[in-house]
Amino acid sequence: MRESELLEHIYRRSEGLAGASPDLVVGPGDDCAVLRQPGGGLLLLTVDQLLGGVHYKPGTPVDSIARKAVARSVSDIAAMGGTPRWALATALLPGNYPHADELFDRMAHWATRWGCPLIGGDIGSGPGELHLTVTIGGEAHPDRGPVLRSGVKPGDLLCVSGPLGGAFESGHHLDFEPRVELGRRLCDTLESDLHAMIDLSDGLGRDGARVARASGVRLVIDAEKIPRRDGVDSWRNAAGDGEDYELLVAIAPGRNLPEGLIEIGEAAEGSPGCEIIDSGEKIDAGEMGWDH
Amino acid sequence: MRESELLEHIYRRSEGLAGASPDLVVGPGDDCAVLRQPGGGLLLLTVDQLLGGVHYKPGTPVDSIARKAVARSVSDIAAMGGTPRWALATALLPGNYPHADELFDRMAHWATRWGCPLIGGDIGSGPGELHLTVTIGGEAHPDRGPVLRSGVKPGDLLCVSGPLGGAFESGHHLDFEPRVELGRRLCDTLESDLHAMIDLSDGLGRDGARVARASGVRLVIDAEKIPRRDGVDSWRNAAGDGEDYELLVAIAPGRNLPEGLIEIGEAAEGSPGCEIIDSGEKIDAGEMGWDH
Repeated sequence: MRESELLEHIYRRSEGLAGASPDLVVGPGDDCAVLRQPGGGLLLLTVDQLLGGVHYKPGTPVDSIARKAVARSVSDIAAMGGTPRWALATALLPGNYPHADELFDRMAHWATRWGCPLIGGDIGSGPGELHLTVTIGGEAHPDRGPVLRSGVKPGDLLCVSGPLGGAFESGHHLDFEPRVELGRRLCDTLESDLHAMIDLSDGLGRDGARVARASGVRLVIDAEKIPRRDGVDSWRNAAGDGEDYELLVAIAPGRNLPEGLIEIGEAAEGSPGCEIIDSGEKIDAGEMGWDH
Repeated sequence: MRESELLEHIYRRSEGLAGASPDLVVGPGDDCAVLRQPGGGLLLLTVDQLLGGVHYKPGTPVDSIARKAVARSVSDIAAMGGTPRWALATALLPGNYPHADELFDRMAHWATRWGCPLIGGDIGSGPGELHLTVTIGGEAHPDRGPVLRSGVKPGDLLCVSGPLGGAFESGHHLDFEPRVELGRRLCDTLESDLHAMIDLSDGLGRDGARVARASGVRLVIDAEKIPRRDGVDSWRNAAGDGEDYELLVAIAPGRNLPEGLIEIGEAAEGSPGCEIIDSGEKIDAGEMGWDH
């Protein structure tokens, strides 16, 4: 079973969760889960894992591994327009792993750098590759609330926050800056005209299709407008390589394009999906990207 | 480096955390981290990992694996006298793992059963054994607050919540009931006379020594009083096997023994450590147990 099929199973099973947890605002299937807090405000929760040999190559510096493990989860909070507040980490260390001290020091450094100090965790050891998980709790924007995947409306402007593609080869997947400040600024300035966001981890095509399905709309993207990282020759790589951690943003029509965003298309009525128009040809981009 | 040495490094590094995170009440080194919530009340946070071949044997039923993954983290909340509220899970699945649906269904079942519905997570696949993590958030007892490891005072009565030893062989490590209700009841009835708690995962000797160091006292335990699981011949196994998930509790002297607890010794002044008295001989039990 592929990850995407398993996720569908989990989302279906989770449909009864609202009854079990009256404080639940958003369950499985978005960038973060969202819970009503007892004293007011909304708690954002996310967890991601990082596996040696899958998410980074052998020989990657310990600091880069630590940074990416934290940054992936911070990026999920950014994708909701939220602010990271605390982090927990687990590590499964290979036998006689010599860099454990440094690894934890650097995870703590990066967590503090992004506003979510590392306040707890669990360590174990086992065979196989280094395997990290980072859980982050954050706060939703106090006025706009959490920005979900499901809010796109036909006619919305679609934008991304930076060039796409080639993230693994270029090293961008190790040194990207999670878009926390941008996400928060978009909430501040666009308020309810900020309709939806997602962070692009599995590629514009695949993640775009997720947004489209959640919102019940069709994303129509102009291949020529997709910004490409230096050295990325084709829009197909830009849309499919993954690990960009840029934001895909949907904004109500008629707003000026906010600083830091690049327009790539618009949302339309039609069967939910993500299509990319290349010289007049419509290409279904929903299967482009990384199923990991 | 052993896990215990690495943990000491992490705790030392974490001493500056309070400055970085003004809402932090308890950082790394106790059963849970404790955070002040914006609207009042205290949030308990814990994460544990479960690795195939280490925490369970090949051939263990999927339901038992799912149950243990959730129960270990629930037990950390119980050890603070708290109430579990929500859970996140990650799974690293071996290639072509055939039981992913069932695994997630059963994790969701057990999480709901213990009051902390599974509201999010992350799935990946990789080489090696099945590897799960479960993060749980809970609420501290509203009146007593979180019960820490550091509150033992000389003269305190020391108790455990059930028989110890042989947890792996007997299957107890898979079907134990986390002591959430007991922990909460002790908070209700003993209030500030409930001085300290920990859940025994690494063995009475090793976990007792952790409590002793955190509290700056000596735990003096009577070998004959240590309750043993059926089939456990020696107090050394009861104190050292680990995976009991019973509570070790310190209570102010002069209180009646609460229902559900068994007295095993008392706390004394002296160099911090855990000693077990066997026929008049003092044995340092701090190294008994499981360093995993």
